[in-house]
Amino acid sequence: METRCATPLAITTGEPAGIGPELTLILAAQGALPAGTVAIGDPQLLRQRAAALSLEVDIIEVSPSQALPAQRAATLAVWPVELAEPAVPGELNTANSRYVLETLALAVTACQAGQAAAMVTAPLHKGVIIDAGFAGFTGHTEWLRDACGVDEVVMMLATDRALHAQAPGWEGSGDLRVALATTHLPLREVADAITVEGVIRISRLLEADLRHQFGLSTPRIAVCGLNPHAGEDGHLGREELDVIIPALDKLRQTGMAISGPFPADTLFTPRHLAGVDAVLAMYHDQGLAVLKYAGFGQAANITLGLPIVRTSVDHGTALSLAGKGVADPGSLKVALSVARRLADQRAASLG
Amino acid sequence: METRCATPLAITTGEPAGIGPELTLILAAQGALPAGTVAIGDPQLLRQRAAALSLEVDIIEVSPSQALPAQRAATLAVWPVELAEPAVPGELNTANSRYVLETLALAVTACQAGQAAAMVTAPLHKGVIIDAGFAGFTGHTEWLRDACGVDEVVMMLATDRALHAQAPGWEGSGDLRVALATTHLPLREVADAITVEGVIRISRLLEADLRHQFGLSTPRIAVCGLNPHAGEDGHLGREELDVIIPALDKLRQTGMAISGPFPADTLFTPRHLAGVDAVLAMYHDQGLAVLKYAGFGQAANITLGLPIVRTSVDHGTALSLAGKGVADPGSLKVALSVARRLADQRAASLG
Repeated sequence: METRCATPLAITTGEPAGIGPELTLILAAQGALPAGTVAIGDPQLLRQRAAALSLEVDIIEVSPSQALPAQRAATLAVWPVELAEPAVPGELNTANSRYVLETLALAVTACQAGQAAAMVTAPLHKGVIIDAGFAGFTGHTEWLRDACGVDEVVMMLATDRALHAQAPGWEGSGDLRVALATTHLPLREVADAITVEGVIRISRLLEADLRHQFGLSTPRIAVCGLNPHAGEDGHLGREELDVIIPALDKLRQTGMAISGPFPADTLFTPRHLAGVDAVLAMYHDQGLAVLKYAGFGQAANITLGLPIVRTSVDHGTALSLAGKGVADPGSLKVALSVARRLADQRAASLG
Repeated sequence: METRCATPLAITTGEPAGIGPELTLILAAQGALPAGTVAIGDPQLLRQRAAALSLEVDIIEVSPSQALPAQRAATLAVWPVELAEPAVPGELNTANSRYVLETLALAVTACQAGQAAAMVTAPLHKGVIIDAGFAGFTGHTEWLRDACGVDEVVMMLATDRALHAQAPGWEGSGDLRVALATTHLPLREVADAITVEGVIRISRLLEADLRHQFGLSTPRIAVCGLNPHAGEDGHLGREELDVIIPALDKLRQTGMAISGPFPADTLFTPRHLAGVDAVLAMYHDQGLAVLKYAGFGQAANITLGLPIVRTSVDHGTALSLAGKGVADPGSLKVALSVARRLADQRAASLG
């Protein structure tokens, strides 16, 4: 008799010259992949990398339409995508950029078809993809936004415990969820990128996914100011008075439990985080320095606003470490764990 | 027979309508003031505030040229400065702004004369001092810079444990020292305020005080980038390439143990902080959000570059809490503890 397994989590193994393939293999060798995990990538690449690192992992090719084999330690199910040229650790090759994008496309298709419950992305290398002729490529997140046909997504990082708390509550214990109003912008461009409409859109999107993916019935969002001391009544910048406060006023009028703007160096303290489900930071380093400190460098990146569940590691390709077996799979482990939880929650929420 | 006590730590009790007076009284009532602490302020104000809060504290007026009375729990030695008008908790009064500045002036004079080992400042209120006609007033730190006749100072915040570690070493345990290249600037002005010369000057000043005040023979400084991902080789901003890297190169040529620029969300993780004595952040929220998170909201503010030792609480006047006895004296306690340690170290260092 056959039992149905949970819908798979699909790992896109990312840049083949980077650490993505070996992080996946290390977890497989440790038996640390969650049940029902499948990797997307070149089976030959994975076999070679496993052999080079003396990782005893049995690579089993399956197609997305097949059920996964029963998961055992030291096995790794793979949905195959073929490299154009063999990959050398640490050496970027534009010939393999299309392959990287194909792994993403396969993951999206599988999620949309219900063959995968979520996609978990290992790092890719933006530069080599651009150099390969995909000039408009600006990263996973934007590519997925376009592939899924949505207008806007929001980047959120979360420490692991936050995702596993049944009754989320900030206990000053390192649990933290931080969404960003702007992401990969030079600092000098941030102030002009913060608009009333943008804060409203992003807050709504954040609130919607806190409901659907996190199962919170009335998400409580706390918002950082843009300027130090949240502008100190206009003495240290006017964006709070002119942009953020009007946006939050409008959102509260619609019943949203959103508060702020607060000084970032006040908000990120246990007393102020109590009763807050997520923080909306105005820019990258304002929110992520503290998030990564709290998560000991290991956090999951979650893309909100997509019709599918996508999590990611919070680090890059680490080309200088690739092929050495020394890279830390901690963030991939967190991203997988978070993805499973979000997928389960979304399934429950959609009934 | 009389024994000489340690040179006093002088607390300037700050804005009389704020929480500074009662924080000092609460610590005195708890017996939690370090030995040899003296408050600077209006003795009547302190007596009235103590009575209103039912704090049994004996206020003993002494002059800076006198030895302090032997410290007992529930006593508070005070160097008197007279208010112009009675102070009402929560109600700012421009008539008393000169008083606030007089308490600072007395503290500086006493430190310079060797009558105080350090000054520890409770919060003042910038706005009311400006409204009182001191138009150029921009805060404690700049006022002290001018009063001490130095050109530049650097703001550093530290969690308490860092200051008490005999052999400072980052253990991911919340110990953190963060200095700032820019402080109270609107975010949109930060990028232009970062210059090669500024980074060099501030790093030198930071290194000098890590030697003299912290007793570190070869301070190791790690520097944050300005932009997310430290600019990602120019893709996310050029200030790292054009400003920060050239400045650090010059500093390293002179033998300084300074490294970076690092992405802020990478640097503030235990692995990267190992072996680092202080972080130089480029701006307020980049460094202080994580510092205050790590210190559970209680950190000491230390002004580097002064010929005297000055520490401060890390919070404001909290007018809405004033007179209620509910404000948390934790940061004042940390600031006092840090001040004593820095004063002892500086005395040892100066031989």
